[in-house]
Amino acid sequence: MTHPAPALDLNADLGEGFGRWRLTDDEALLSVVTSANVACGFHAGDPSTMRRVCEQAVARGVRIGAQVSYRDLAGFGRRAMDVPPDELADEITYQIGALRVFARAAGGDVAYVKPHGALYNRAVTDADQANAVVAGVLRAGGRLPVLGLPGSRLLAAAEEAGLPTAAEAFADRAYTAVGTLVPRRQEGAVVTDEEAVVARSVRLARDAAVTALTGEEVAVRARSLCLHGDTPGAAALARRVRAALEAAGVRLEAFA
Amino acid sequence: MTHPAPALDLNADLGEGFGRWRLTDDEALLSVVTSANVACGFHAGDPSTMRRVCEQAVARGVRIGAQVSYRDLAGFGRRAMDVPPDELADEITYQIGALRVFARAAGGDVAYVKPHGALYNRAVTDADQANAVVAGVLRAGGRLPVLGLPGSRLLAAAEEAGLPTAAEAFADRAYTAVGTLVPRRQEGAVVTDEEAVVARSVRLARDAAVTALTGEEVAVRARSLCLHGDTPGAAALARRVRAALEAAGVRLEAFA
Amino acid sequence: MTHPAPALDLNADLGEGFGRWRLTDDEALLSVVTSANVACGFHAGDPSTMRRVCEQAVARGVRIGAQVSYRDLAGFGRRAMDVPPDELADEITYQIGALRVFARAAGGDVAYVKPHGALYNRAVTDADQANAVVAGVLRAGGRLPVLGLPGSRLLAAAEEAGLPTAAEAFADRAYTAVGTLVPRRQEGAVVTDEEAVVARSVRLARDAAVTALTGEEVAVRARSLCLHGDTPGAAALARRVRAALEAAGVRLEAFA
Amino acid sequence: MTHPAPALDLNADLGEGFGRWRLTDDEALLSVVTSANVACGFHAGDPSTMRRVCEQAVARGVRIGAQVSYRDLAGFGRRAMDVPPDELADEITYQIGALRVFARAAGGDVAYVKPHGALYNRAVTDADQANAVVAGVLRAGGRLPVLGLPGSRLLAAAEEAGLPTAAEAFADRAYTAVGTLVPRRQEGAVVTDEEAVVARSVRLARDAAVTALTGEEVAVRARSLCLHGDTPGAAALARRVRAALEAAGVRLEAFA
Repeated sequence: MTHPAPALDLNADLGEGFGRWRLTDDEALLSVVTSANVACGFHAGDPSTMRRVCEQAVARGVRIGAQVSYRDLAGFGRRAMDVPPDELADEITYQIGALRVFARAAGGDVAYVKPHGALYNRAVTDADQANAVVAGVLRAGGRLPVLGLPGSRLLAAAEEAGLPTAAEAFADRAYTAVGTLVPRRQEGAVVTDEEAVVARSVRLARDAAVTALTGEEVAVRARSLCLHGDTPGAAALARRVRAALEAAGVRLEAFA
Repeated sequence: MTHPAPALDLNADLGEGFGRWRLTDDEALLSVVTSANVACGFHAGDPSTMRRVCEQAVARGVRIGAQVSYRDLAGFGRRAMDVPPDELADEITYQIGALRVFARAAGGDVAYVKPHGALYNRAVTDADQANAVVAGVLRAGGRLPVLGLPGSRLLAAAEEAGLPTAAEAFADRAYTAVGTLVPRRQEGAVVTDEEAVVARSVRLARDAAVTALTGEEVAVRARSLCLHGDTPGAAALARRVRAALEAAGVRLEAFA
Repeated sequence: MTHPAPALDLNADLGEGFGRWRLTDDEALLSVVTSANVACGFHAGDPSTMRRVCEQAVARGVRIGAQVSYRDLAGFGRRAMDVPPDELADEITYQIGALRVFARAAGGDVAYVKPHGALYNRAVTDADQANAVVAGVLRAGGRLPVLGLPGSRLLAAAEEAGLPTAAEAFADRAYTAVGTLVPRRQEGAVVTDEEAVVARSVRLARDAAVTALTGEEVAVRARSLCLHGDTPGAAALARRVRAALEAAGVRLEAFA
Repeated sequence: MTHPAPALDLNADLGEGFGRWRLTDDEALLSVVTSANVACGFHAGDPSTMRRVCEQAVARGVRIGAQVSYRDLAGFGRRAMDVPPDELADEITYQIGALRVFARAAGGDVAYVKPHGALYNRAVTDADQANAVVAGVLRAGGRLPVLGLPGSRLLAAAEEAGLPTAAEAFADRAYTAVGTLVPRRQEGAVVTDEEAVVARSVRLARDAAVTALTGEEVAVRARSLCLHGDTPGAAALARRVRAALEAAGVRLEAFA
């Protein structure tokens, strides 16, 4: 490559505990990512955790994003729900408002929105729910950027509404020959080999490309790379990915 | 009286449904009160109701207040809870943030805070919880006024923190000879005669006085009068109180 | 008709409040129905309401059924959810167990199961969720009958599992020419004329027939007639339906 | 000692996850304890976890107890709540019923009841709440034994109601000279030295005695020893305690 690689954002889900329960290693991840998708209380995230994560994110210069979700603590937001669009929009607005007060109290602000779990997946193809998310973001004010899957209805709806968008890629997910994610239920959908995840991260950042599950080279343009933080060893792998990106000269910088 | 009566605020709890369930006659009350205590989702209040009440309040020029509560949908916030002060403060901040985004989207803002139910009662005497409420209000920013019982720890804590305060009175509650409320469990604690409620409202507004349950005349200085709206006939009584106050020349004006 | 009409069950949803909120006029409905679908806490129904409704049902000789639902208080169980079948089955079992302890304490028992809202609708066609409901009923023990829509996957799955089933009809819903319900979003789906509802009730009971929205005569065999109790005037209409059925000589008797 | 030591029960809290969140190492603990206090959904415990723990408990011959709690997922049942006695009793009954259906489906049954967290603590001295717990247990049927602190109002109320009771001791909690627990907020309230915990366990079992924080020998008669399982290393310590008890010839046997 003769031209400089564009900046890459690293995002991860944080604050996904609830009361007595912890899930994500928030402190470790905040030393790795440039953008923190903070749970807002609907699938995870109690007020005290939200405050703490916002304070730590601001202290480290990490951008704060609202990780909005279906209202489903029992299912961790992983169960698709037929929420009527008007209600869904209001639920999105509510969550952004609840996070914003903590972000601002910490001296920062909510800088973007990323749907979580089943809502994220559904907004890839479901126009009604994608539009509802965008309507909720618009009502929250501040013209917040939306982070999501390239080619998704969500990003299209956000662009149609005049909102900034950012596309993200996954180094630990297999891609099809046309650049979409291999569905999780399919064999080989998740890349578990850590070396491979690190190598794919660097390739995504430097070459905007990935090798598909079926062998083809596929272009994947993404402003952000999503790291996972809710499994044992996740934080350590995230650190390795960041180190490899830095060693490869990739500039790490929040998108928002 | 030779001097003009000071302005009186009329406040009531609104938006106290949840999803399919309705409780308060929001539209009717919004045509009566000058300040709306809007439920924020912890004891009642779903996002769509919060949005709708905020829009209607702004349309009618009614002030919006955050009616913050313990997290207790099953108990409607009426069961005192030993929430640790730090958690309680964060829960207060969360609720204010969630309401604020709807208030601002509607072209208004959260203009004050009033605790609900068991939290209201507890903050009368419990310094830890009163301080926690105030800490939550402070963190939410905007130096929001606190509405509460005159002589309460809550108003004292708010004043110590430099927050504006407003004291409220109740025309449908009996007072003791020293100007405190007769506890609900005591005989005669609630004034059910509607004529009496109307007459007491006018007296509170014009003379800053009430006849105690034991017959004494008691001074009760209150910037706001609390009307109840969660029982059948409540909205009609609220209308009568307002009409009587207007007929008596009382200037009705929000305190915040 | 020269042969005697078969017995008809009248069922309605009861106990659909939650804490401070009330919805169904339980006492009035219990004097009309022969089977009470009691909410179990997932879309509505707090423990004290469940106890009270069970006590009243036993006192009046009304059968108690478990009105099982998605876990969705905010949406009143009306939003379809992609709950994984194993989890859904366990949630069904949980709800039956929770109601059973109150039914037995009152001297009765849970006599059948009827899914609520979005789960009811989804189990009409979704085999996975229909099977999950049946698995949950089976695990609860007692081989409880399942009440549902004739021709539904739910009743088929129950029959395949060896459970008794009962089909229900709706006098206030329009039918298609092939005997299925006209979807609610379609014009004319709900019969609002009270005289018509009463007349259709009698026809369903006596002739097992209904006039379709498109004019055809359709056979609808149902052991139970579902009455609605969550709107103003619903209890009064239910009483009228019962009176008309009795006047027509229809024998009213629980199916379970 | 010349007479044989009485049998000792080992109990621990299990199933204290919720949905995606895990807390207790249920499998490890089930190989140590003789009685499992299973969370019933109010402070922790989703239906699938309840089913799984019941199945594993029955497979290992471990007794199943209902670990009943305040309705407080956000606070993990650790915040005292002023639940009116009638409501509290109904909430207790509900939880027992919900667990019973899984216990029976697994081939076992709910064999006892133990309150959790703040409810446990409050029922030590608060007669109204102790009576409410007992009323809820009675309504659930089966005359279930109640497990609690010796000298507590809870055990007194259970005895007055004719219910069997079992007293428990804590090897990792300091005792006062009169045999009550040193409050947690006090210095030295928790015994963190693992050797000491093991030694105290054996002494409690063999001699029914413990050395108080202030040095006195105190008699502590307990049919059950409570082990903790919600911290890292807890399961390993529980295993050591059991091994030491077995080495000392203590007969381990459920009380119920």
